[in-house]
Amino acid sequence: MISRRSLLQQAGFASAALAMSELPGFAFPGEWLHSQEEVVPFTDVPENFTTINAQTKRVSGLDLRQLNAFLTPENNFFVVAHYGVPTVDAATWKLDVRGRVANPRSYTLDELKKRTRAQRECSFECGGNRAPAILNRMIGNARWTGTPLAPIIQEAKPTADALEVVLWGADEGEEQIRTEKFRQNFARSMTLNDLAKSDAILAWEMNGQPLTAEHGFPVRVVVPGWYGVQNVKWLNSLELSADRFMGRFQARDYVTIMGRQNGDKTEWVETSVTKIRTKSMIATVTRRPGGALSVFGVALTDGTPLKSVDVQIDEGPWVAAKIDTPPNPYAWSWFRAEVPAPSAGAHTVASKAT
Amino acid sequence: MISRRSLLQQAGFASAALAMSELPGFAFPGEWLHSQEEVVPFTDVPENFTTINAQTKRVSGLDLRQLNAFLTPENNFFVVAHYGVPTVDAATWKLDVRGRVANPRSYTLDELKKRTRAQRECSFECGGNRAPAILNRMIGNARWTGTPLAPIIQEAKPTADALEVVLWGADEGEEQIRTEKFRQNFARSMTLNDLAKSDAILAWEMNGQPLTAEHGFPVRVVVPGWYGVQNVKWLNSLELSADRFMGRFQARDYVTIMGRQNGDKTEWVETSVTKIRTKSMIATVTRRPGGALSVFGVALTDGTPLKSVDVQIDEGPWVAAKIDTPPNPYAWSWFRAEVPAPSAGAHTVASKAT
Repeated sequence: MISRRSLLQQAGFASAALAMSELPGFAFPGEWLHSQEEVVPFTDVPENFTTINAQTKRVSGLDLRQLNAFLTPENNFFVVAHYGVPTVDAATWKLDVRGRVANPRSYTLDELKKRTRAQRECSFECGGNRAPAILNRMIGNARWTGTPLAPIIQEAKPTADALEVVLWGADEGEEQIRTEKFRQNFARSMTLNDLAKSDAILAWEMNGQPLTAEHGFPVRVVVPGWYGVQNVKWLNSLELSADRFMGRFQARDYVTIMGRQNGDKTEWVETSVTKIRTKSMIATVTRRPGGALSVFGVALTDGTPLKSVDVQIDEGPWVAAKIDTPPNPYAWSWFRAEVPAPSAGAHTVASKAT
Repeated sequence: MISRRSLLQQAGFASAALAMSELPGFAFPGEWLHSQEEVVPFTDVPENFTTINAQTKRVSGLDLRQLNAFLTPENNFFVVAHYGVPTVDAATWKLDVRGRVANPRSYTLDELKKRTRAQRECSFECGGNRAPAILNRMIGNARWTGTPLAPIIQEAKPTADALEVVLWGADEGEEQIRTEKFRQNFARSMTLNDLAKSDAILAWEMNGQPLTAEHGFPVRVVVPGWYGVQNVKWLNSLELSADRFMGRFQARDYVTIMGRQNGDKTEWVETSVTKIRTKSMIATVTRRPGGALSVFGVALTDGTPLKSVDVQIDEGPWVAAKIDTPPNPYAWSWFRAEVPAPSAGAHTVASKAT
């Protein structure tokens, strides 16, 4: 459940009339986008909120209030780069497949591009995406082009004891581990079982263009339905391992602790961030002619069909939203709900998805 | 490779003539045990070395120099209890099978005991067992009796998304996680794949006796071929999980960092402690009539047949040891090698196993 405060007595600026951008494969009717209705401003947006990085002039995320396209443009798609953005030379780049395999080998970019071509349209968010902290800007939906990952692993012939594949990036930094410092590369792993069940690809294009440096040029992993951290950028090695990989981004960061009740006891469980948990996010609230509010937003899942989105003002009744679900289960859905006009003043609008 | 220093010019005490204790299932010939030969003392044993805890009067590990039985007696079998030893009432104890299962259920101790009875004779060591630090005393070989774990999981009918089983113990303590403190129970997990391939049991007997409190009364897990940490004591819950469990003893402690060379780069890889890595440990060195040294010790694997053990004095040639391998692949093997007499003075004796 995501909660936003909206200052309903103020209805400052109207949204710009926004042209629909490229909507290939799934065309939203106009009603899903900002209308000419009066936009109700949110009170939870800090004065200095911006998605533009002043130094790089790049957009570092999606301002959901401006959501107007089903595919998120590259420069509105959030970037997290724990060790900065490395420069990789595509001409000398290669991908090593190694470790617990009978047939280790390397691929050049050209060799990868000669393999089966696959597209994945999927939305993902950062494991740390939260409304209060960063206004849910760490989310996007894009079309990725590359080649399926599972066959590359299969062709390497994992040995019987291979448990998982470690996805190694070219980006590196120094990590304090107990009493010593070690230079390490970014890496994530996934079990071979999870990989076999996934539609993961090695991607070299985003929205029809070669990956930019920020998004992992020349090749990144895209695992539809998983949190962003699994989509390793600047990939240069696939390592089959008999042991669980326990690097920083697998076992220390991107670990969630959640409390749950078991009888009269609260149990605290730490688990790894992997598949996306169903979530809805409110993008805009507008006032319709007559005063009712129209709440618009996006919801995403791990590929499981979205059942419902409901919207609520303060502690009022939950109102079912209309959902437009794209044919591709990994892309986000947009939703819109009409709720009765509340009294003047500050209110909280919330949404929940199942 | 394990290295020990032995002060060869001193030949202080002879080992006591030790009667062979119970050797059921696998009888070692007398030659494997301490003979009347002169014992060569090790110089790496601290003055204050003892396996007896002064406060509890309990033995907290095996003094390998005294190794004289194939099965390690309960009070010589090492104990690690991160949150102390809890008192569990067997009359009210139950084991919950829960989480991502279609058929959750609970078992009393009597109900477990009515299930298929299974024995596992296996040796395991602590993931932190090291010659320099703790003189390899965190090792033992015992016979455990209980019931196979995998069928209990199968009968609970894991849902399609169940990835692993979390083994929860009754012992608990407070953990600092980022900025907050949480009360947590000891727990480890293993993938359902690993579980299916393993001979894991839920054990309530050790060497033919009910478990003592220190060894996990009333029920602990025993996973043959895995490090000690996996053998969760005071077990009270089996939780099927769709996510990787990342508690302290899975993801922060019992994580190994190892360097390896990849071209001109050293890669540091962190992995989880799971299956035992093949290892040999020297127990005693004796001087034979004529001056040659007889090096005696144990080796263990994850169940993979032991191929060889070799012994070396200083940087001299490796000498193949004679190995007596028990029929059960999970139990330790004992080895003995004869090496030529070195010059008087301090020397290093080492062994390696494959």
